[in-house]
Amino acid sequence: MIIEIIKLQLPRSSKFFLIILWIFFGGASGLFAQQDFKADSVMIRKIYDHALTGGNIGPNLYHLSKNIGSRISGSANAQRAVEWGKKKMEEIAPGRVYLQEVTVPHWIRGKKERSFFISKSGKKITMQVCALGGSVDTKGMLKAQVVEVKSWTELATLEDKDVQGKFVFFNRAMDPKEIETFKAYLAVVDQRARGAIEAGKRGAIGALVRSMTLAIDTFPHTGAMNYDPNVKKIPAAALSTMSADLLSHELKQTPELIYGLEMNCLQLPDEKSYNVIGEIKGSIYPDEFITIGAHIDTWDLSEGASDDGTGFVQTLEVLRLIKNLDHKPERSIRAILYMNEESGAHGAIKYAQEAISAAETHITAIESDAGGFSPRGFRVEGTTEVTEKIKSWKSLFIPYKVAELHACQRGVDLIPMKKHAKALISLDCDDQRLFNIHHSALDTYDKINVREVELGAAAMASLISLISKYGL
Amino acid sequence: MIIEIIKLQLPRSSKFFLIILWIFFGGASGLFAQQDFKADSVMIRKIYDHALTGGNIGPNLYHLSKNIGSRISGSANAQRAVEWGKKKMEEIAPGRVYLQEVTVPHWIRGKKERSFFISKSGKKITMQVCALGGSVDTKGMLKAQVVEVKSWTELATLEDKDVQGKFVFFNRAMDPKEIETFKAYLAVVDQRARGAIEAGKRGAIGALVRSMTLAIDTFPHTGAMNYDPNVKKIPAAALSTMSADLLSHELKQTPELIYGLEMNCLQLPDEKSYNVIGEIKGSIYPDEFITIGAHIDTWDLSEGASDDGTGFVQTLEVLRLIKNLDHKPERSIRAILYMNEESGAHGAIKYAQEAISAAETHITAIESDAGGFSPRGFRVEGTTEVTEKIKSWKSLFIPYKVAELHACQRGVDLIPMKKHAKALISLDCDDQRLFNIHHSALDTYDKINVREVELGAAAMASLISLISKYGL
Repeated sequence: MIIEIIKLQLPRSSKFFLIILWIFFGGASGLFAQQDFKADSVMIRKIYDHALTGGNIGPNLYHLSKNIGSRISGSANAQRAVEWGKKKMEEIAPGRVYLQEVTVPHWIRGKKERSFFISKSGKKITMQVCALGGSVDTKGMLKAQVVEVKSWTELATLEDKDVQGKFVFFNRAMDPKEIETFKAYLAVVDQRARGAIEAGKRGAIGALVRSMTLAIDTFPHTGAMNYDPNVKKIPAAALSTMSADLLSHELKQTPELIYGLEMNCLQLPDEKSYNVIGEIKGSIYPDEFITIGAHIDTWDLSEGASDDGTGFVQTLEVLRLIKNLDHKPERSIRAILYMNEESGAHGAIKYAQEAISAAETHITAIESDAGGFSPRGFRVEGTTEVTEKIKSWKSLFIPYKVAELHACQRGVDLIPMKKHAKALISLDCDDQRLFNIHHSALDTYDKINVREVELGAAAMASLISLISKYGL
Repeated sequence: MIIEIIKLQLPRSSKFFLIILWIFFGGASGLFAQQDFKADSVMIRKIYDHALTGGNIGPNLYHLSKNIGSRISGSANAQRAVEWGKKKMEEIAPGRVYLQEVTVPHWIRGKKERSFFISKSGKKITMQVCALGGSVDTKGMLKAQVVEVKSWTELATLEDKDVQGKFVFFNRAMDPKEIETFKAYLAVVDQRARGAIEAGKRGAIGALVRSMTLAIDTFPHTGAMNYDPNVKKIPAAALSTMSADLLSHELKQTPELIYGLEMNCLQLPDEKSYNVIGEIKGSIYPDEFITIGAHIDTWDLSEGASDDGTGFVQTLEVLRLIKNLDHKPERSIRAILYMNEESGAHGAIKYAQEAISAAETHITAIESDAGGFSPRGFRVEGTTEVTEKIKSWKSLFIPYKVAELHACQRGVDLIPMKKHAKALISLDCDDQRLFNIHHSALDTYDKINVREVELGAAAMASLISLISKYGL
């Protein structure tokens, strides 16, 4: 109406401008028709009110972290987490809650690892290490010289005699100058993933990898590693950043120093395990699914409060928030607790296989696995049309400080749905604290601010309620 | 150039649109002429590189928190912090570093406080309390009934007999539904500030105030309170949120319960103290000052790592970053460590008095006192022209995730400069964790992520470098 009045007083060229202006300032949402932003903002406000008052994120995360604790794939604790997650889902949405069987690897660390080097003066200097997830054991104490590299090129240019029978020490550090710590992580994680393969190819007897953290401290960080069936499997360990710096310093003075590593890890037979799935049926389009999920399993060094305890309890909370809406969701909402994200994503692969073979329509797959810190927005992977539609809702998220939209989702558990869901979306959180604790003994309940986890759950439930209403 | 080419192919009305479009997408900065965004972005990148690599924020904050510790105005520790701050400034910018004398109040908590109530069953229930800063003592154990209120209206409507000789218990809680915790804080802090006055007016013998935090835990949070010279001074204490909830619950069952409070706090004679000031002289406009500051003093319950240890070390770091620029700053940069923000801001008042009486030109006063968490942008208070100019730099801050601009700065230490500086600016940080620790024993070094403090220092140094270059 206001635009009409102004138009009358302006020349023709300005009218065109005004229309464009109107589109810029939110009118563009009109392009996607029938959107009622006022009602939507009321709905979102209610979701946040529910999340920030009567929620169970605090007690749930405490229970998962402290009473269940670390829950590596195949372990008894992982099974306890499955059962507890199922029980919690049944309390929230006592409709269809079920387990989806999946076979997972079962690796154990065994007795505590030992590691050291002998300094120039003959002193035994202890190194803080941990086996990388999936590593073979050392069959007793393994002793050898060390060659340090920071890139694949550097490894490639070494002569065979400088690698064979030695440990290769991959010491490329995360770059503190990178503002997004996740990008700094992506630039070094190849060392952990491929270190044992590339070192093994060259005849090394072990791989030592600098921990993936920006903190300079005494905590080693584990994580997934790979072997190549055509390359001899050699043991691989992570060194704390302080140990890595000390070793690097000592190698400059004593290149021939002897390094010792003993690890007793073991790959046990695969185990039967489960994804946990709970559904709220859509009132208008029951055959269109929006999934929300996170992973159950953790690494074994900590209680996995952040990775991915926060996502686990957010998944339950999103189900509760959707259940508590004033109306039934138009589309079916499916909450999925995936098993085995950390070492193969067998749960996510199984879920996708079943969904695809049942020819289910998945319009969006959403996940939370970014640490559970202050949410800042979403990472959306989809067609331009889908992305534009989500962008048109941006103003609804500004009051909640979760309006940042980026391309490229980051959830491993969503990848198997890449070609099957219209959009893959991950919750984006402040990542400045994440890698300080990631995959290490530091990932504990006290590092988490429950309120930030609540805000993340509310953000995801709000986005889901919009997708449920308008489709994608 | 590109715009020129497109223009040739378009009708006249579109040309007008294109110009508008160009202004929307950053061309507007051209209105402020001679801005070289390419050079500026290189400068800012260098500032961040310096901040995120060779900085001293970690060791400095550790020293200030752990070796100096709590530093309430007038205390020996406050004086140690003054001397250490001066030494650090001299190491960075050995030009003009000086102390500015200021008289400050000196209040001490005395022996540990004791508090309890007697339950219906006659059991003595311990309450977690602390004296509010500046409170008078109780002169032994003070025992009386309690009347609970949540608003001034509620207090006003009470009959005299229901208040006289009793404790008034101000139990209005911070609202968890408020997304910005600072707003939730502002909505309740009047109870702490005026509780003792308003209760005293009505003949109460003491004021009990719910701690200003969203966390439900056992830690009382102190903070500034006021007395009115015309109203009898009564003791005022903060209760932990758990104690407040317990007391409120018990009062519903036993309105006549007896509450006990003993506090031995004492107002000592005023002390001589100091602001610490360090300057880097401007190369082109040496008489135009940009100030950056934070406060030295803390409350006494903790080491004040967050409030305002983070701002203290950021102030030193900004001085170092500006000193390390490739060029001398065009305008004079003055770093100020203010004394006594927490209980009267006498340092800031003194600074402003001196600046005004010396007829100094202050184009901007910047401060950091928002907790030291992930920086998100700036809060700018100034004329529309000044605000628009800062907005025109927004794109330079987007890569660093500190591009949010809000009105209304929040630094107490800037208020005395309100009419004298062209703009007052405070660093805006994620505030989800702030009030969990604010003014309580929980405000310790381990709550801080050094990298987030570094990012804040870099953001402020970048803004200062732009203001120094272009003026305001």
